[in-house]
Amino acid sequence: MNNTIPTRIYLAEEEMPKFWYNLRSDMKEKPDPILHPGTLQPVVPSDMEPVFCKEAVKQELDDDTRLVPIPERIQDFYRAYRPSALIRAYYLEKALGTPAEIYYKFEGTNTSGSHKLNSAGPQAYFAKEQGLQSLTTETGAGQWGTALAMACGFYGLDLTVYMVKVSSEQKPYRKAVMETYGAKVIPSPSNTTEAGRRILEKDPNTGGSLGCAISEAVETAVKTDKCRYVLGSVLNHVLLHQSIIGLETKAAMDKYGIKPDIIIGCAGGGSNLGGLIAPFMGEKLSGKSNARFIAVEPASCPTFTRGRYVYDFGDTAKTTPLVRMQTLGNGFIPSANHAGGLRYHGMSAILSKLYHDGHLEARAENQTEVFDAAIRFMKTEGILPAPESSHAIKAAIDEALECKKTGEKKVILFGLSGTGYFDLSAYMSYNAKTLSDMVPTNEELERGFVTIPDIPQNK
Amino acid sequence: MNNTIPTRIYLAEEEMPKFWYNLRSDMKEKPDPILHPGTLQPVVPSDMEPVFCKEAVKQELDDDTRLVPIPERIQDFYRAYRPSALIRAYYLEKALGTPAEIYYKFEGTNTSGSHKLNSAGPQAYFAKEQGLQSLTTETGAGQWGTALAMACGFYGLDLTVYMVKVSSEQKPYRKAVMETYGAKVIPSPSNTTEAGRRILEKDPNTGGSLGCAISEAVETAVKTDKCRYVLGSVLNHVLLHQSIIGLETKAAMDKYGIKPDIIIGCAGGGSNLGGLIAPFMGEKLSGKSNARFIAVEPASCPTFTRGRYVYDFGDTAKTTPLVRMQTLGNGFIPSANHAGGLRYHGMSAILSKLYHDGHLEARAENQTEVFDAAIRFMKTEGILPAPESSHAIKAAIDEALECKKTGEKKVILFGLSGTGYFDLSAYMSYNAKTLSDMVPTNEELERGFVTIPDIPQNK
Repeated sequence: MNNTIPTRIYLAEEEMPKFWYNLRSDMKEKPDPILHPGTLQPVVPSDMEPVFCKEAVKQELDDDTRLVPIPERIQDFYRAYRPSALIRAYYLEKALGTPAEIYYKFEGTNTSGSHKLNSAGPQAYFAKEQGLQSLTTETGAGQWGTALAMACGFYGLDLTVYMVKVSSEQKPYRKAVMETYGAKVIPSPSNTTEAGRRILEKDPNTGGSLGCAISEAVETAVKTDKCRYVLGSVLNHVLLHQSIIGLETKAAMDKYGIKPDIIIGCAGGGSNLGGLIAPFMGEKLSGKSNARFIAVEPASCPTFTRGRYVYDFGDTAKTTPLVRMQTLGNGFIPSANHAGGLRYHGMSAILSKLYHDGHLEARAENQTEVFDAAIRFMKTEGILPAPESSHAIKAAIDEALECKKTGEKKVILFGLSGTGYFDLSAYMSYNAKTLSDMVPTNEELERGFVTIPDIPQNK
Repeated sequence: MNNTIPTRIYLAEEEMPKFWYNLRSDMKEKPDPILHPGTLQPVVPSDMEPVFCKEAVKQELDDDTRLVPIPERIQDFYRAYRPSALIRAYYLEKALGTPAEIYYKFEGTNTSGSHKLNSAGPQAYFAKEQGLQSLTTETGAGQWGTALAMACGFYGLDLTVYMVKVSSEQKPYRKAVMETYGAKVIPSPSNTTEAGRRILEKDPNTGGSLGCAISEAVETAVKTDKCRYVLGSVLNHVLLHQSIIGLETKAAMDKYGIKPDIIIGCAGGGSNLGGLIAPFMGEKLSGKSNARFIAVEPASCPTFTRGRYVYDFGDTAKTTPLVRMQTLGNGFIPSANHAGGLRYHGMSAILSKLYHDGHLEARAENQTEVFDAAIRFMKTEGILPAPESSHAIKAAIDEALECKKTGEKKVILFGLSGTGYFDLSAYMSYNAKTLSDMVPTNEELERGFVTIPDIPQNK
């Protein structure tokens, strides 16, 4: 294909971002403050520092600093696998016969297989700088655990990963990668924690959930002073680190004078979507762009489209601070869905607020249709996408087909957050036509909502 | 790290090679001609065209054309995943404390996970252009089968893959990727062919071998007129396509004025090594460079270091043309070795000739030490390497440590031909310390050599 815009756009090393961008600084309406679960007052750093690294807490509570310098050693870390490619989907466009231009930012070529490494590196670095010896975390589909295992291997930190049991059984190789990088992987719920034992007593056969694995990881972290807990999504500082995705994308697009009309990402906790849209949403909030933003979630875990915008805990044991967010209730256990990374009851406070205020759209998709889109994509673009990322592909294809109807030549950008190398059992089920859509009934959702704490909401 | 040479060098789209480079054209001593197994005369195109695509045969037998234009549509195909990155191993260098500069060309970020796609694309394209409907092939570790499945999916061709049985059992997910791309995968030996049935009769429990899978694939291909057989390594036209690796590498190095002193690649059939070294070896043969070239093979399948340079068949059923090459004998069955892609009895005729004439060195490595090197690499450079590629890593580290002893600031280049995503069972064995080195005894080698046909050799 002979076009002026190359198929793959890579930034040169000197063009790579030196700062993270804090989207909150440009939000006139900020997300509601994080509350201490005991006092119901906004948390102060000392409330969070027993659990999280100091620098992470500072970033978490900083709504104002617009550009946060990326420390030199983290720039080094990023250079080991970044920049990622911004790819023009010429083949997909042609197959769809759409007048739309489709671009995707592909975060899946590093060994962890996803964008998660963008925050794992900084968080491990901050822990090391603080003099810590070890970290704990949870992982669902395994991307975050793998990324953190790599980062801890790189910076020389011990790591314990609580892996949602159903995932650890479905993905033994994910576990193997983490262990090869030196991490200790414990299927959750486990009997190594109070939180785990409590859940196992109630339901010895549970496949686990992210909310439960978080409880176990936090409990373990606070037991010793040289250990902290790190989270791979949802929180503000994670979205800050992930802004590298959007910043690189914007720099690459600016180089070629490309302005996206529609920006799409899959949303589990929001780290990939939040990172991709950050600088573009910043422009929109300051009136410089009319782009549309679309969050795509699985119909089996419809946090945006069927959740509530209220204060809730981040974990099932109700030990975390309270965050005002779109939530299905901390007790919501999603039905087994192979798009494991999107199975969280809550959502980034930043994205929740943007959705609440009408700046961000959301839609829920059934997984069989998501896999249809994935197959269409892999056969044209050549890349085997993660089931999570395929939610974004589904929406991008739908928007491109809408352009075909209307004849509009829109510019569609989506985030391809990871590869499907470790999700082949899901593809095998798809090939065997044994995948099903597991949409929760209203009654099931109600059972989640009753676990939401009864706290006065602002509005 | 603050250096003038970036960590990752990507060519711009307009800098990408438009021609393949045919190393044979610059060899004063050409590889011996391929012989017809019946007449023992040099083959002519009509001998090979019932088995292979016409264009592949033409390229196979062309020792003279120096630059072969890459058809536009294959340039398109390449643009879907190329250029690959040339990476400066700053982190590994630092960890080793070596004065050497280490570079590696990383071919593992496409969905097939290895360099094999570079020849799968062209071969599928040539088949399509010729009006064929289907292709057959064999695959060992699965990289080639995956790559060809992707290419056939892209160009709309049916594909049957004979997969070495032990691999298909060890790597169900490899099989799943191929099937997801629409390929039919048959564990070999199978009862779908004469060749397979014959081997199963002798040894019903055999894990299979590449040589046997080749026999089955060829037998199936010649049964119908609209079907041909394609091979992913060893042959001259495959090395021609793989010259894209070396050409990109050389262009990237020339941009920064880098001259490699030592060039290293793993060698199974030779496609990755042959592709990487092509333009550099061309310079050496014409007196413009003094670089050293090192082929690294597994001690379990020591084709260079303990094989013979004689005419042999490419398959165990003795149906292919005869090629003068380094060989362990077409009946050699290597002991199970996780570096599956390096388990072939023969070797590229081009590389065999270069070795025979003293232009190429070779060394054999034990797999436990290869995995030690792989772990060292993944913890510093972040990339999980394929066991095959890790043979090159091992030699690169050894050469860098030698520089540390002597204080020499050599420039070392190696090929990182693929990722280890699908080899995690091997890493699990390594972690569990159950890997062993399986070096054939002299008696075992002799049993292979007796299968070599008794043909007068030139010298």
